[in-house]
Amino acid sequence: MNVAILGFGTVGVGVYDILSPRSDINVKYVLDIVKHEGLTAVSTTDFNDIVNDESVDTVVEVIGGLHPAYEFISSALKSGKNVITANKMLVSSYYEELTALANANGVALRYTAAVGGGIPWLVNLERAARCAKICEVSGIMNGTSNYILDAMHTDKADFSECLKTAQDLGYAERDPSADIDGIDTLCKVVLSANIAFSTVINKDDVDVAGIRYIKDCDIAACEGMNRVCKLLGVAYDRKDYVSIFVEPTFVSEKALEASIHTNLNLITFEAEHVGRESFYGFGAGRYPTAYTVVEDCIDVAGGVKKAYNNVMNSSVIKNSDTVHKYYVRTDYNNDWFASISKENYANGFITEEVSVKDMHSFCNEALAAGKECFIAGIREL
Amino acid sequence: MNVAILGFGTVGVGVYDILSPRSDINVKYVLDIVKHEGLTAVSTTDFNDIVNDESVDTVVEVIGGLHPAYEFISSALKSGKNVITANKMLVSSYYEELTALANANGVALRYTAAVGGGIPWLVNLERAARCAKICEVSGIMNGTSNYILDAMHTDKADFSECLKTAQDLGYAERDPSADIDGIDTLCKVVLSANIAFSTVINKDDVDVAGIRYIKDCDIAACEGMNRVCKLLGVAYDRKDYVSIFVEPTFVSEKALEASIHTNLNLITFEAEHVGRESFYGFGAGRYPTAYTVVEDCIDVAGGVKKAYNNVMNSSVIKNSDTVHKYYVRTDYNNDWFASISKENYANGFITEEVSVKDMHSFCNEALAAGKECFIAGIREL
Repeated sequence: MNVAILGFGTVGVGVYDILSPRSDINVKYVLDIVKHEGLTAVSTTDFNDIVNDESVDTVVEVIGGLHPAYEFISSALKSGKNVITANKMLVSSYYEELTALANANGVALRYTAAVGGGIPWLVNLERAARCAKICEVSGIMNGTSNYILDAMHTDKADFSECLKTAQDLGYAERDPSADIDGIDTLCKVVLSANIAFSTVINKDDVDVAGIRYIKDCDIAACEGMNRVCKLLGVAYDRKDYVSIFVEPTFVSEKALEASIHTNLNLITFEAEHVGRESFYGFGAGRYPTAYTVVEDCIDVAGGVKKAYNNVMNSSVIKNSDTVHKYYVRTDYNNDWFASISKENYANGFITEEVSVKDMHSFCNEALAAGKECFIAGIREL
Repeated sequence: MNVAILGFGTVGVGVYDILSPRSDINVKYVLDIVKHEGLTAVSTTDFNDIVNDESVDTVVEVIGGLHPAYEFISSALKSGKNVITANKMLVSSYYEELTALANANGVALRYTAAVGGGIPWLVNLERAARCAKICEVSGIMNGTSNYILDAMHTDKADFSECLKTAQDLGYAERDPSADIDGIDTLCKVVLSANIAFSTVINKDDVDVAGIRYIKDCDIAACEGMNRVCKLLGVAYDRKDYVSIFVEPTFVSEKALEASIHTNLNLITFEAEHVGRESFYGFGAGRYPTAYTVVEDCIDVAGGVKKAYNNVMNSSVIKNSDTVHKYYVRTDYNNDWFASISKENYANGFITEEVSVKDMHSFCNEALAAGKECFIAGIREL
C-alpha cells in the first residue's frame, strides 16, 4: 500500500518513523509547508501531486485543524483514496458528510487516533457494537486536563501553576482553551457516541463545562468528600434521545477513574451482555498517536474499506432527564439556584439532584454575567 | 455461517441466546450429553452428526476440560471447520499442535474468551503485535481470586469465609483449586505470552504461587504498607528468554490494579511506541464470555481464517534474573532464607531483592515439607 502523509509535525514524523521499516506499507509522499531532505518519501508542498498520483491508495492526514485538512480529505475521498486521520475536530464537525463520502466511494475513513490517542478505543467500540447494544460511553478523554487535575490533587498546587507545568512538559498547547474548556473532550465524546449509537450528534447541542475556573479550594472540597476530580465526557443512549455532556466530576476515590494519573486516559463503554469495559493508555503523544494511525493503516491494507458507521439518523439531545447532585462554587445567584443549593459545603454548595441541562444553563448564565462559577457533578460511576 | 455449539452449559446457553436473533450466523447444532427440546437448532448427542455435516462451517467448543474437547476440536480442524473456543486449559496445553492444525487446514482457531472472558484482550494483543514489539503482558486474570482478595481487604474476613461467599455467588467452583492455586491464571498468562511474543511457553516451566494459604494477617500486613494484594500473572520478553510467573503481589494502592474490585479483571501489555495499555471488564460469567465467543464468530464470518500465531519458536523460560522484594510468612527456614530475610514485618518477613526462581523454589520446598508458607511479591507496576 502506498501512503501519503499530510503534515509532518509531531504525529506525522512519528507515523513516518514507524512506517519506514515496514515492507507492507510504503510512504510515497510527505506533504508539508516546507520541503524536507533526506526522506525516503517524496517531499512535496503541493497536495495535487498526491491526489493526482493513482498509485497512492491512502492518505494519512495529521495536519490538524479544519482547513485545509477538510479540503484535502474530501478531495482524497472523492478520488477514491482511503483516508486515515487523527483529526477529532474535523471529523466531529463534518461527520455525516465525510462518512457518506467514504461510503459512496467505497473507501476507508478511519480515525481511531482521534479519540484516545494510543488507545484502540474506536475500533473496539465498533467491534462491540456489532454484537451488543451500547448504552453508555464515557471517560477521561483529555490528557492535558487530567494532568492538571491530577497535579492539583497531588501537589496541592493551583490551576495556573499546574497548567504552566503541563505547558512546559509539552502536554498543553500555548493556547490551552481546547483542553481546559472541554472542547477536545467534546469532540471525542461526540465521535464515540456517533459510533456507539450509530448516530450523528450535533456538537452545538452538547452541554460542556471545563476546568478553566477550578481553584485549589475546589480540589480540597472534593478531597473532603473522599473523591477525586476528573473531567469526563459522558453520553447515554436513552432510546428516544441521547444525553451527552462534558463536565468536571467528583468521582469516588474507589472508582477506576480515580486511579488515572498524569496525562493518561481511561475510556469506558457499557453494553448489553458484557457490562462495563474500560480501555486505558496514553491519550496523546507522538508515538502513541502515530502507533494508532499505523494500526489503522494496517487495517486498511488488510481490506477494511469503510467508515465506522453506515446507517445514521441524527439524535435528539436531551439533558433535562439526566440528574445528579453538583458541587458549585459561585458568586452568582438566582431563584432557581437558591431553591436547589441549600447545603453549604466548604467555599461552595452541594445542590439537590438537578438536571445537567439546568445546571449548565445556570453556569453559562453566571459566566456570561461576568461572575465566577465552577461546577462539578457528584456521581457514582 | 452455520455454527455448531459443543456444550450447552453456562457459556453454551449464552452463545445460543446471543446468536439466536442474528441473521448472519445460524446455530445449526447443539451438542450435549442429553437432547434438548424447543431449540431452533438440531439437538444431538453425537459429534459425528456435526463433523460429517459439510454445511457446518464453524464449531464453537464450550464444553471445557481436556477431553473430549481436544478430540472434537482436532477432528473439526482436520475436517476444515473453523474452531472457536473459550477453553484456556485445552489451548494452553495443546497450543503448538492446534495452531499448526488450524494453519495447515486454512481455518480459524480463535479463543478470545479463553483469557479475560468478556474483555477483548487477545484480539487487541494480536492487533498490537502487528505494529509494535510487546515486552510485557500482565494482570489480574482470575475473577474468583480477585473476588476473594478484594473481600478480605474490604470485609476483613478470612480466606475460607470469602471463598465460601464466592462459591455461594457462583464465582468459585466447588473445587476451587484452579482459581486459588493460580492454575487458571497460569493458562491465561501462557496464552497471552504465546500471542504477544510469538512463542510457545511450556506451562510446566512457569513458577506459580496461588492464594490458598493467605490469611487475614497477610492482608493486614499488606495494608500496613499502603498496598493491596492481587494475584497477578506476569510475563516479560527479555529477548533471549521469557520470564513468566504467577504470584500474589502487594501493589501500591495508587496502581490501577489496586482499583479492581469484586470479580473484575484488568490485563495490561507494554509495547514499544505505545507504552502501557490496559483492558478492564468482566473476566467470566455467562453473557460476557458468550459475548466474546460471538465476537469471534463474527470475525470468522467476516473472513478471519487463522490462528493467532504463525511463526513459533518455543522460548527458554528463566526467572532467575527477575528480582524483587517479597513478603513471606512461613514457619520453614533454611540457610538461604535466613540470609535474605533479616527484616521482620508483622507476622512475616520482608526479604531483600531475590529472584522469582529462588523464592518460588523456597516456597515449594516449605510446602513439600508440610510447613506453612505464603509469599507475595512487592512490586511497583
